[in-house]
Amino acid sequence: MESRNRGETVLEEIYKQLEENFEETVSIRRYLHQHPELSFEEEKTPQLIARHLTEWGIEVREGVGGRGIVGTIRGGQPGKTVALRADFDALPIQDLKEVPYRSTVPGKMHACGHDAHTATLLSVAKVLQEKRDLLRGNIVLIHQFAEELVPGGAKEMIKDGCLDGVDVMFGTHLWSTIPVGRAAFQPRAIMAAADHFEVEIIGRGGHGGLPHETVDPIVLGMNWVQLIQQIISRNVSPLDSAVISVGAFHGGDAFNIIPEKVEIKGTVRTLRTEVQEMIERKMESILHSLCEAAGASYQYQYIKGYPPVVNHAAETAFVRSCAEDILGTDQCYLTEPLMVGEDFSYYLQHVPGTFFLTGAGNPEKNAVYPHHHPMFDIDERAMLHAGKILASAAWRFLNDES
Amino acid sequence: MESRNRGETVLEEIYKQLEENFEETVSIRRYLHQHPELSFEEEKTPQLIARHLTEWGIEVREGVGGRGIVGTIRGGQPGKTVALRADFDALPIQDLKEVPYRSTVPGKMHACGHDAHTATLLSVAKVLQEKRDLLRGNIVLIHQFAEELVPGGAKEMIKDGCLDGVDVMFGTHLWSTIPVGRAAFQPRAIMAAADHFEVEIIGRGGHGGLPHETVDPIVLGMNWVQLIQQIISRNVSPLDSAVISVGAFHGGDAFNIIPEKVEIKGTVRTLRTEVQEMIERKMESILHSLCEAAGASYQYQYIKGYPPVVNHAAETAFVRSCAEDILGTDQCYLTEPLMVGEDFSYYLQHVPGTFFLTGAGNPEKNAVYPHHHPMFDIDERAMLHAGKILASAAWRFLNDES
Amino acid sequence: MESRNRGETVLEEIYKQLEENFEETVSIRRYLHQHPELSFEEEKTPQLIARHLTEWGIEVREGVGGRGIVGTIRGGQPGKTVALRADFDALPIQDLKEVPYRSTVPGKMHACGHDAHTATLLSVAKVLQEKRDLLRGNIVLIHQFAEELVPGGAKEMIKDGCLDGVDVMFGTHLWSTIPVGRAAFQPRAIMAAADHFEVEIIGRGGHGGLPHETVDPIVLGMNWVQLIQQIISRNVSPLDSAVISVGAFHGGDAFNIIPEKVEIKGTVRTLRTEVQEMIERKMESILHSLCEAAGASYQYQYIKGYPPVVNHAAETAFVRSCAEDILGTDQCYLTEPLMVGEDFSYYLQHVPGTFFLTGAGNPEKNAVYPHHHPMFDIDERAMLHAGKILASAAWRFLNDES
Amino acid sequence: MESRNRGETVLEEIYKQLEENFEETVSIRRYLHQHPELSFEEEKTPQLIARHLTEWGIEVREGVGGRGIVGTIRGGQPGKTVALRADFDALPIQDLKEVPYRSTVPGKMHACGHDAHTATLLSVAKVLQEKRDLLRGNIVLIHQFAEELVPGGAKEMIKDGCLDGVDVMFGTHLWSTIPVGRAAFQPRAIMAAADHFEVEIIGRGGHGGLPHETVDPIVLGMNWVQLIQQIISRNVSPLDSAVISVGAFHGGDAFNIIPEKVEIKGTVRTLRTEVQEMIERKMESILHSLCEAAGASYQYQYIKGYPPVVNHAAETAFVRSCAEDILGTDQCYLTEPLMVGEDFSYYLQHVPGTFFLTGAGNPEKNAVYPHHHPMFDIDERAMLHAGKILASAAWRFLNDES
Repeated sequence: MESRNRGETVLEEIYKQLEENFEETVSIRRYLHQHPELSFEEEKTPQLIARHLTEWGIEVREGVGGRGIVGTIRGGQPGKTVALRADFDALPIQDLKEVPYRSTVPGKMHACGHDAHTATLLSVAKVLQEKRDLLRGNIVLIHQFAEELVPGGAKEMIKDGCLDGVDVMFGTHLWSTIPVGRAAFQPRAIMAAADHFEVEIIGRGGHGGLPHETVDPIVLGMNWVQLIQQIISRNVSPLDSAVISVGAFHGGDAFNIIPEKVEIKGTVRTLRTEVQEMIERKMESILHSLCEAAGASYQYQYIKGYPPVVNHAAETAFVRSCAEDILGTDQCYLTEPLMVGEDFSYYLQHVPGTFFLTGAGNPEKNAVYPHHHPMFDIDERAMLHAGKILASAAWRFLNDES
Repeated sequence: MESRNRGETVLEEIYKQLEENFEETVSIRRYLHQHPELSFEEEKTPQLIARHLTEWGIEVREGVGGRGIVGTIRGGQPGKTVALRADFDALPIQDLKEVPYRSTVPGKMHACGHDAHTATLLSVAKVLQEKRDLLRGNIVLIHQFAEELVPGGAKEMIKDGCLDGVDVMFGTHLWSTIPVGRAAFQPRAIMAAADHFEVEIIGRGGHGGLPHETVDPIVLGMNWVQLIQQIISRNVSPLDSAVISVGAFHGGDAFNIIPEKVEIKGTVRTLRTEVQEMIERKMESILHSLCEAAGASYQYQYIKGYPPVVNHAAETAFVRSCAEDILGTDQCYLTEPLMVGEDFSYYLQHVPGTFFLTGAGNPEKNAVYPHHHPMFDIDERAMLHAGKILASAAWRFLNDES
Repeated sequence: MESRNRGETVLEEIYKQLEENFEETVSIRRYLHQHPELSFEEEKTPQLIARHLTEWGIEVREGVGGRGIVGTIRGGQPGKTVALRADFDALPIQDLKEVPYRSTVPGKMHACGHDAHTATLLSVAKVLQEKRDLLRGNIVLIHQFAEELVPGGAKEMIKDGCLDGVDVMFGTHLWSTIPVGRAAFQPRAIMAAADHFEVEIIGRGGHGGLPHETVDPIVLGMNWVQLIQQIISRNVSPLDSAVISVGAFHGGDAFNIIPEKVEIKGTVRTLRTEVQEMIERKMESILHSLCEAAGASYQYQYIKGYPPVVNHAAETAFVRSCAEDILGTDQCYLTEPLMVGEDFSYYLQHVPGTFFLTGAGNPEKNAVYPHHHPMFDIDERAMLHAGKILASAAWRFLNDES
Repeated sequence: MESRNRGETVLEEIYKQLEENFEETVSIRRYLHQHPELSFEEEKTPQLIARHLTEWGIEVREGVGGRGIVGTIRGGQPGKTVALRADFDALPIQDLKEVPYRSTVPGKMHACGHDAHTATLLSVAKVLQEKRDLLRGNIVLIHQFAEELVPGGAKEMIKDGCLDGVDVMFGTHLWSTIPVGRAAFQPRAIMAAADHFEVEIIGRGGHGGLPHETVDPIVLGMNWVQLIQQIISRNVSPLDSAVISVGAFHGGDAFNIIPEKVEIKGTVRTLRTEVQEMIERKMESILHSLCEAAGASYQYQYIKGYPPVVNHAAETAFVRSCAEDILGTDQCYLTEPLMVGEDFSYYLQHVPGTFFLTGAGNPEKNAVYPHHHPMFDIDERAMLHAGKILASAAWRFLNDES
């Protein structure tokens, strides 16, 4: 009980330090915002991160998995290891905002908030490093490159050992459509696997008046599009979320010629790997069967994006309780999963943890545009909220588990 | 009985005369072959026809329905009126044959035998004109322009009176895939209505991951393509012939965007007007219903080609018996309908008659290519066969009906 | 020429004789009508036939293929061999007519005219036997049992040699919906193959609220019914006739339980063996594929009825010309095929020949009911027409082929 | 702070009292178990409940909404009003358990735990009544009849005023497939709307060989079944849960007759009223459109079961926190919604609240069978857990809201 009280006091100090350092955090974020680097092209950004960490006395490993930076805060007492992650790549979008910290690189922009993620994690690192003597265990700071572009940086950083010895992992995404001051949690899948597929059905073309001499790929393609609807209606549990959408269907040029082939493209979104794999498999087996029965052939490509980000329930509840203390219970809520992708998923396939959303929207700051929009911006106070939650979660995970 | 015998004697003379004039017939055909004129652009061809008819003393009306020529042979005795028809337009195809009579006009060619139809009818006209005193009734010679291009010349010529007073009408198409020396008959529909349709289904586009916020036009189009299959399987009598083929289906660009609309094109082939109209109507009513239920809108265009050429049974049997006398019973046969269009159909909507196929194929003459092929040619003896059959049918129809 | 004239004179005598014997023909028909025997149960009927033939001096073989009777008229001169066929079985229908010759057997009735077929062939036999010295060749009289019930009597009679040495074969069916005095011909398929199928699709039942734990056989069956529609719309030539109809679809008891299986029954009608076999095969391959993709199993039974009766063109033209001489040209016409079955098909798989329809309808004789109707009757003069046509065809085939 | 401590002390007393009274609770439950009464036939059960409540000094209203009992505990101090609910009807199932308290009524059984719900709520009532002087506000005890049978008792009890003045409402269902000692919560929909539908499609029957003369209801029904699949795949949000299952499809008797009509039955399960209503509407509009296009008619009946039980998030979090204190944090979890129905939904349409599941399964007590199973039983300690949670929630809601 006393230890807890002690811990709570330290946490209060951590929060206060974060607040005091907030100006520096903002300044780092803005610097990064002005100097965006695209996925797999990051050079200056990781250097800057490493420089800061080193400066603060944090042990740094560079070039992890390619371009990643991993810092380690070694606690004064033995214990578990918590990893925190921020991604740092930008997008090939022209910044259209009228702000002093606008991107200086034509056609490139931090339109997803990774600059703020990085600044936030750095602020957390600096403060926790100062408290390292009190820490029971270690904190691993994962600064990840290339989140925006499949195959992403997480996979390679994991291969390169960034999770070695890690017991739990936390991460957040600032979110411009959630009001600043709030945070959203999901104890299970919070972000979808977003895959796409490309199908070519090759029949046998011929005269429109003589269908029996052809293998009609339009009708065949249509049968397939229709039968894959039933994967959703019959094979996916009503309690699972899954989408199969055909975005493009093209075949034929002339009204009176049955074409040789059709091309079909579409997307699949799922929240569980089992569902994703069932759909991938079932779409092909239906295609295979239809073509076999019709005497047609096909090409089937199923291109996986990131797997779903599947949170762990206990870790989510834990971080949520940290957030409730900071933001207030009524500011924390259960979010629906988002049907977008994120490679935080790979970390959670290896260690327990959670990924949550930190509200960063504020009409007064023009922080109202959706992510990937050329006017995208955030209310920078979100960095303080995210920083406190991550610091609190790390601290408590290590020091309360007594 | 005597009259018949007399008639038979005259017929023999007619046949003999056609044979004697055959060289001239060939020369007319070859001249036309060298000087093809496209549909609705015919100028020299009708002039040449009119000049010949006039020269032979046949009453001529020019510019019928636009560019048609109508000659009339007035028999020495009162009786019925028979019309015979030949079309005279050419096609926008480059003649690739290596023959002396090859087309002299670049990119234009008599690739369907209309030159030979014209020469044949002229040869028949000349000979019957010589026998006009013995004729009981009149013969109308319909030289038609623009058969190859919808809306065709027949309709306008009929409006312009070419069938006035006509009791029966006969016509033939030389056919390169039937061996010379044979003729093919069909007591009902011999050529199809060949229509086409263009459909646009306008849904509501949107994100592929959020189908419920869209009205998916690809799935809707696919439902339509599928349900119209059932028109053939359920609504067309198994004894009727009909085809609905979708030749083109296009919608969408991106794999993850549900498009705003799809475009569908196809062809409908039928042999009976009732079936044609049922299909036209039913395709739209299905489209209407599907769109209504889904909250989509649509454009539906059904563009009619020529109606089916529906022969009359008695007249077909009659002409066939004429042909059997000339070619031999075993050389005349019942043909399946052809799934192509021909505007002879309009004449048969007004008067009884028949349209038959005269064999014109012969490997030794390189007459082996299908119609509309750049190497298309005929065995010219087919003109003699066709001429005899038409002359015989006209003569007998007028003079045997005693 | 003389021989022909001589032949014509004999034919006139034959016709006259048939007319003179007409009363006897009627009496035989009425006796049979009063004493119907079902398919595969015929005893008295073949005995009666054999007795007549024997009485008239015709060589008889009994029990052919089971219950068939084959008579042979041996011509005075060598030549070819013609077979004529009449079937003699009745139907399990209660005769509801109010006529003196009404069936005396409860629940059994000659409701298809086989009694008249038999009387007609007997009348032809008697007359031709009298002319046998003038015949160049032989006439085989095939009195067939069990036409109404698959597998029919024809197949077994053929196995038992009834067609040995036969060069050509003719047969007719009196037809109550064609006016007496007319006859209908079809140079190709005149009667359909009428098959049926029984399908069971075995999925995996379960709770209606948990479809993903089931393999839904209703949806699977529905997919199959839909895809087989496309066999008609895409795989059958528009010039071929074919029907696939599902007559029964049954699955499930409760609204909230997905059943274990569905049962589907239907019929397939075709006019060509290639089409029939394609459909049989394709229906199963679609079923196989759908079930394979879904993880279901199935039972597929395709039960063939008789094959289509496919006439031979030359023999049809020949018999039609005989009929035109007897009934008048305008009384003979080309009929659409009938979508019913008849085991005359088997004979025509072995020898050339034709099967035609002899008009037997007449409102004045109450001969207006369709075949298999409890009020079915014929205008008995149809027997005279049919007899003359068959006798003429047999005589001319043998004696004109000089 | 002091008040809280005081409250906590009272709560401890309440828990202790519930434990001390547990034997009585068990004995009431077992008595009810032995004397089950079916929905809308309950007589003795409500009398027994009323007797107990009255005996303990609780104000009772009988015959509420028909057969319901409403007790009111009036607190010593003014405040809000909490309602707690237990249902008391049994099922028409034969009890097959071998236990002393087995049902004594043939064919009737408490196979869903309502006996235990009733005993639990009585135990809570008794204890809270004893503490009434300390209560700030009132507690309404809703003993509901007829939960098992649509339209249920809740609706009528509400009409009859049982919710008048109520501020919040809590309820639980003991659940045999959740281990005793655990409790499951869902901040949104926890139980589905379970509706069913009955469709009749009336086409025009006819001969299987002549489909064009019919309106084929089997093919039409199949088209409908297929298109309603797409409601799930296209019109329901991937984040919503919905099922449409066809449980029965029946049409036709003979393989060669296209039937007049088909009958289709199925179930619809949804978790949100908007989705439910969209499906109800869309299923009919598709049916209407298909029938209209085909010239068929239809009967469409959509029979609503209970609406989904949609919990309120804050109230759920509140009760969960009560449960966590009692059972331990790790024993409380977020449950998937259940695809079954429950008329607690009606209460939550009027007042905020939550419905949760209390684990009652235990292999050692043979409490392993699913609800509605003839061997169904519970671990009776679940009543103690449920009682503590309900009492705690009521107490805290009233007394902590200072």
